[in-house]
Amino acid sequence: MAATPVWSVDPRTGKRLGEVAAEATPAEVDAAVTAAHAARGALAGREARVAFLRAAADLLDASAAEVTAAADAETALGTPRLTGELARTTYQLRAFAEVVEDGGYLDVRIDRADPSLVPPRPELRRSKVPLGVVAVYAASNFPLAFSVPGGDTASALAAGCPVVVKAHPDHPATSELCAALLRRAAVSVGLPEAVVGLVHGFGAGLELVRHPLVSAAGFTGSIRGGRALFDAAAARPVPIPFHGELGSLNPVVVTPAAAAERAEEIGAGLAGAATLGMGQFCVKPGLVLVPEGPDGDRLAGALAEGLAGASPGVLLDARMRENFLSGAAERAALPGVAAPVAPAADGPHGVAPGFLTVPARRLVDGPADGPHGLLLEECFGPVTVLARYAGPEEAGAVLDRLSGNLSATLQLSAAETAGEEPDGPTAALLARITGLAGRILVNGWPTGVAVAPAQHHGGPYPAATSHSTSVGGTAIERWLRPVVYQGVPDPLLPAELREGNPLGLPRRVDGVPEGPTAPL
Amino acid sequence: MAATPVWSVDPRTGKRLGEVAAEATPAEVDAAVTAAHAARGALAGREARVAFLRAAADLLDASAAEVTAAADAETALGTPRLTGELARTTYQLRAFAEVVEDGGYLDVRIDRADPSLVPPRPELRRSKVPLGVVAVYAASNFPLAFSVPGGDTASALAAGCPVVVKAHPDHPATSELCAALLRRAAVSVGLPEAVVGLVHGFGAGLELVRHPLVSAAGFTGSIRGGRALFDAAAARPVPIPFHGELGSLNPVVVTPAAAAERAEEIGAGLAGAATLGMGQFCVKPGLVLVPEGPDGDRLAGALAEGLAGASPGVLLDARMRENFLSGAAERAALPGVAAPVAPAADGPHGVAPGFLTVPARRLVDGPADGPHGLLLEECFGPVTVLARYAGPEEAGAVLDRLSGNLSATLQLSAAETAGEEPDGPTAALLARITGLAGRILVNGWPTGVAVAPAQHHGGPYPAATSHSTSVGGTAIERWLRPVVYQGVPDPLLPAELREGNPLGLPRRVDGVPEGPTAPL
Repeated sequence: MAATPVWSVDPRTGKRLGEVAAEATPAEVDAAVTAAHAARGALAGREARVAFLRAAADLLDASAAEVTAAADAETALGTPRLTGELARTTYQLRAFAEVVEDGGYLDVRIDRADPSLVPPRPELRRSKVPLGVVAVYAASNFPLAFSVPGGDTASALAAGCPVVVKAHPDHPATSELCAALLRRAAVSVGLPEAVVGLVHGFGAGLELVRHPLVSAAGFTGSIRGGRALFDAAAARPVPIPFHGELGSLNPVVVTPAAAAERAEEIGAGLAGAATLGMGQFCVKPGLVLVPEGPDGDRLAGALAEGLAGASPGVLLDARMRENFLSGAAERAALPGVAAPVAPAADGPHGVAPGFLTVPARRLVDGPADGPHGLLLEECFGPVTVLARYAGPEEAGAVLDRLSGNLSATLQLSAAETAGEEPDGPTAALLARITGLAGRILVNGWPTGVAVAPAQHHGGPYPAATSHSTSVGGTAIERWLRPVVYQGVPDPLLPAELREGNPLGLPRRVDGVPEGPTAPL
Repeated sequence: MAATPVWSVDPRTGKRLGEVAAEATPAEVDAAVTAAHAARGALAGREARVAFLRAAADLLDASAAEVTAAADAETALGTPRLTGELARTTYQLRAFAEVVEDGGYLDVRIDRADPSLVPPRPELRRSKVPLGVVAVYAASNFPLAFSVPGGDTASALAAGCPVVVKAHPDHPATSELCAALLRRAAVSVGLPEAVVGLVHGFGAGLELVRHPLVSAAGFTGSIRGGRALFDAAAARPVPIPFHGELGSLNPVVVTPAAAAERAEEIGAGLAGAATLGMGQFCVKPGLVLVPEGPDGDRLAGALAEGLAGASPGVLLDARMRENFLSGAAERAALPGVAAPVAPAADGPHGVAPGFLTVPARRLVDGPADGPHGLLLEECFGPVTVLARYAGPEEAGAVLDRLSGNLSATLQLSAAETAGEEPDGPTAALLARITGLAGRILVNGWPTGVAVAPAQHHGGPYPAATSHSTSVGGTAIERWLRPVVYQGVPDPLLPAELREGNPLGLPRRVDGVPEGPTAPL
């Protein structure tokens, strides 16, 4: 059977830019995984991993013009955005080098032997070890930061796990280029290039998650695709962890006081957040609870003004454009829904942003699986839904209908943010939305997920299929498992567990933190 | 339809001791989960949880005579062992109270806003929140420490999650008694009793893991039962984490030098470890790699002597006894297998311990799914298998055939433990078995899993279905998910995240540990 070609396509024109590769056969997937598995020992040394992550960042930075040009040609995301995304990507690689150097992620714990206990306690020394080959499924919407050189790859390599990336079909040429740069960086620091593999094709993605030598998977994408892979990971003879980020509505609640105080500012901010990257952010605010009445009307007016002034643009691929246009139209056709600025086609390849409004009671009066439930599902692209609520009970009833989210946001007034009543309604509202999401914002917009040690980019299903994060320092924890050594003589212990702490790691000894710390 | 009665049975006689309860109907499971869910807010305060865990420990201790009598009647484990198990159980409850007080499990991380970064970094404050109702599946072999008042329950309550326990049919009366004591302890500190629920019956267990308000599950038991529940948890519309401990062979490797030096000591130690609790430990050493030749023969002789002197005993139930006898007989009948001390029936209800030997090459010459593969599967009860190996390659080939384990053990000589060659064969062997298990021992026996901050009781599948632990301080992490607050004003933040650190928690600020620590 002839190989199935993989084409790079320009979404601005729908034209093929070139044949980039071929879809991987099962034998090719097996070869990539087997080579990655064989290379895993080379990632055991932390100096090598640190050097590799930094070399990869340097090489990507040095190739910035080539990388962003390749990505722009395939994604139409534009050079400014892609330049920023590349900077984020290389910052992230370097940040994981720091995480490795710090060593706190190993969560070293030492319990000394205590013969006075009944039964006597043996000496226990606990650290973490890498899981093995990690399968990474690249996202459509971030061809760099959530794709080949992105957070899943960076955190897995930092943990000591080789990766095999399944490229996203929206940017195969960028994927090939980035994989080649990562491999060149590996070789430049003395590592085998097989620590980073790349495969193309839907079937290859399924082969990958089922491969016996694959130990874990990271995924960013749709609920449908992600759930199919999650199910395959769980159904294996030996199930593996599947860390998937699948979809999010990112609800925003605007209080009456906030609308009274800042209607125009909130409306304009929402217009920006809903159209950033042509609405192709997993943290795009997709449902905004806005009070009924004139303040809410002003907010809607500012949003309409902002969207009317927003430029039309191009989505990542033709299928995505079709889904956006049909999804927006289907929602707009529901009883009670209005489209003050209707999302629309713009020429044969572009789209223009818009928004819908609906009385909040429409979202809660019928059964949860009724037609209006569609408005509580993510619609990928530049559209958002304003649900106009009559009072806090109605807003709360809408929140009760929501699935899990990556983010949830409150827009509050100055008096509410002052929080003078710790057990008052604002604190209660904050506690309520904490149950809905992995990241909680006040008076901000969820678009923009900072790469930072404390970041958490995940949330209840379907935002994520696990309770981990795909951004931030703790993303490394996904690729490790703890191991405890009992009664193992010091010279035989891994260096991170030796009594003399030769690596200078933060650790807990008999439950008490020990190590270099800042004063309280 | 009449309720299906649940009987307490004496395994020493096979006689029914009394009707304890009825199997829960779907409506009863729903009622227990709904009540637990409604009670979850009461566990939000950490003082309440600490008081509850300590009150539960005190009440169990005060009821020791009643509890151990109930457990002995149903399990035949004997008063000394059950007295020890109760002490372990109440120690564990108190240890989790300390974990809650320490607060390190929240893994608080604070990143300050940094407007100098591109893009500017917002302020991020990350902590963890409880998942919600946890389903706990009690184990057969530890009616206290891994059942109603056991580690899953203690860690879930410590995390702030109400529990509904599915009782094990081997000890329903003990389960009812312990659940009543836990509920009484809850009420004594002002908590609703619904924070601890109890249901009986196989069907109820499946209902429980499928209930929409159940957020996670903990399980200790067989591969068959655990995998069925794991599959149900993964197949839910909203999948939930299933932390199951399913089975383990707990391999032991005796080096030629260790056999030469300590054959009799190792043989006698193995006899004790393989028969402790009538071999009904998930960490029973079930496969021991022993060198061929006279030193290994001496070891086998000491094991035979130890087992010949071991008392017969009673297993937890009649089905387990049948499985033990048939499983041992099936293994003993395999080509090349000998039974120097044959496991056997002892009267109509008892069994006598034994061991089998097999040339190691038999385990690796055929295909992995050949008949000798049975010797690499756990056989619950007082039997172990000595695999006699000709050299390190053969021993290594056997290790390559093994599934994941809770523990793996090396028996080394004094010279080998001195570890004078950091890259020598002993270190390589230790690294190799680290890939097999969650706990690694040198010159000890895996039976005995200390309750301690650094403990890890888990391992690659099927030892565990996740990379977490069911014993030790970090077991609490299973029942929490991270949440990050972005730009949330201080007065609205949860107490553990406020700038002034009113709870005095250890935390990382801009990546650097801060807080009360011991000097290096």
